[in-house]
Amino acid sequence: MALRARGLAARIRAWSPSPSTRDRCREADWCDEVSGSAAEACRGADLVVACGPVDRIPGLLAEIAPACGEGCLVTDVGSTKKTICAKAREAFPPGHPARFVGSHPMAGSEKSGLAYADPGLFAGRTCLVTPDEGTDPGALARIRALWEGLGMRTSCFGPPEHDRVVAEVSHLPHALAAILCAMLSERAVESAAAAGPGLRDSTRIAAGDPELWAAIFRENEPALREALARFDERLGSFRRVLASGDDEALAAYLGGAKRFRDGLDAGCGREGAPPSTDP
Amino acid sequence: MALRARGLAARIRAWSPSPSTRDRCREADWCDEVSGSAAEACRGADLVVACGPVDRIPGLLAEIAPACGEGCLVTDVGSTKKTICAKAREAFPPGHPARFVGSHPMAGSEKSGLAYADPGLFAGRTCLVTPDEGTDPGALARIRALWEGLGMRTSCFGPPEHDRVVAEVSHLPHALAAILCAMLSERAVESAAAAGPGLRDSTRIAAGDPELWAAIFRENEPALREALARFDERLGSFRRVLASGDDEALAAYLGGAKRFRDGLDAGCGREGAPPSTDP
Repeated sequence: MALRARGLAARIRAWSPSPSTRDRCREADWCDEVSGSAAEACRGADLVVACGPVDRIPGLLAEIAPACGEGCLVTDVGSTKKTICAKAREAFPPGHPARFVGSHPMAGSEKSGLAYADPGLFAGRTCLVTPDEGTDPGALARIRALWEGLGMRTSCFGPPEHDRVVAEVSHLPHALAAILCAMLSERAVESAAAAGPGLRDSTRIAAGDPELWAAIFRENEPALREALARFDERLGSFRRVLASGDDEALAAYLGGAKRFRDGLDAGCGREGAPPSTDP
Repeated sequence: MALRARGLAARIRAWSPSPSTRDRCREADWCDEVSGSAAEACRGADLVVACGPVDRIPGLLAEIAPACGEGCLVTDVGSTKKTICAKAREAFPPGHPARFVGSHPMAGSEKSGLAYADPGLFAGRTCLVTPDEGTDPGALARIRALWEGLGMRTSCFGPPEHDRVVAEVSHLPHALAAILCAMLSERAVESAAAAGPGLRDSTRIAAGDPELWAAIFRENEPALREALARFDERLGSFRRVLASGDDEALAAYLGGAKRFRDGLDAGCGREGAPPSTDP
């Protein structure tokens, strides 16, 4: 939908495992053609974007690889990258006519399904691109240009680094929001009666699809476990600062947190994407 | 500004300890008059709203009490209520011509100062009202009508219950967001490069004023310590669910969190306030 809105694709072919979703794609004005199988959808394509729960993407890549020909660029949008990129190397080995580069557009919401599709979803957001030692530089440049063409800022990480960083900036916040909601649900009536906009914003991600997120947590379990352990240590440090009675130390702690948070907004608005980076 | 926009006040008098804020009030079209002292501002008023950091409000109430006359209704907007309401009972003892009822409108943002004043801030939000055993029923009804007149839903809590509940639904989420930001700031460049909208939303509150929040945390320290301890226990439970390898248990955990979070939005939009409650 976003590619069509920006005029970046001449012809768009869709496939979904769900017959009813395929029917709705047939009626969508961004979709030119609907295929009966994933492999058939990829035949002759210049660009293939494999979307699905993270535990399904490796199988999908294996299924479509034989249909992807010369010059075809394949990417995915999974939230974890180590397993997916390793499986992609097997599906698209050296000598395969198509090229694979993993992507992770950080632009979802707590809603899922075709009904919530939004062509403006990507503008001003970040897309993490995950080349590995076998990635073709030309393919990498094309995939970055694709996401930047949709208004995104791109950052490159190796697949294992991606999974570690994303465990901290995405999966950990999601887990914390879920833990907080689970705790508040024990006294749900009074918690809901007192809930303000701060609680709503800070727990919005906990409304995400439970099965989808369980699969992400399972896939990235080692990195998430480490992130949770790091957080637990820092929770202990904060409790000590609070218990110390040192008001200046408490304000300094909150000031440091504010500086980091303010930095996230600096030049990162929904519309104006700051320059892409290679951290 | 909101009272003026809704036509709920005939004449509005302002006071601030800051001379430059008083100057800006003089130029604001919602303000009819600026006083040189807090007590002077209250003389002859029907309604007094005491605003300030939670550790300043008790002193402010003591200062204005002699100027508040017959029929005057006094409230405050502090985020903690136990100390403030106890000090208010001293400033407005039985027999005092004015009446005090504590309020906590849950409608701030991470911004502070007159420049961010917004007459639409309250619509659709919750205001916690905190009567105690000495509260006059007529004064309580008037204060609820005031906030409901600004489009808010009101809920009543005793001051100690207020502080316990707010520690869980507001101060704990704030502390968690600050701890997360402090942790991510240790690897600030890569964290910022990978940050998505979920992280931005879940940590927005950590951009609040550090001094203001240090005062709130200090004021509500016992309840916040208990909330942090409860969270720490539940963090441990979640880590055990994750480590168990039981995918169904993990999805069920996330599903329970989602149900609570979905409930917060049910009928709680920015515009349409659901009925007020007494939990």
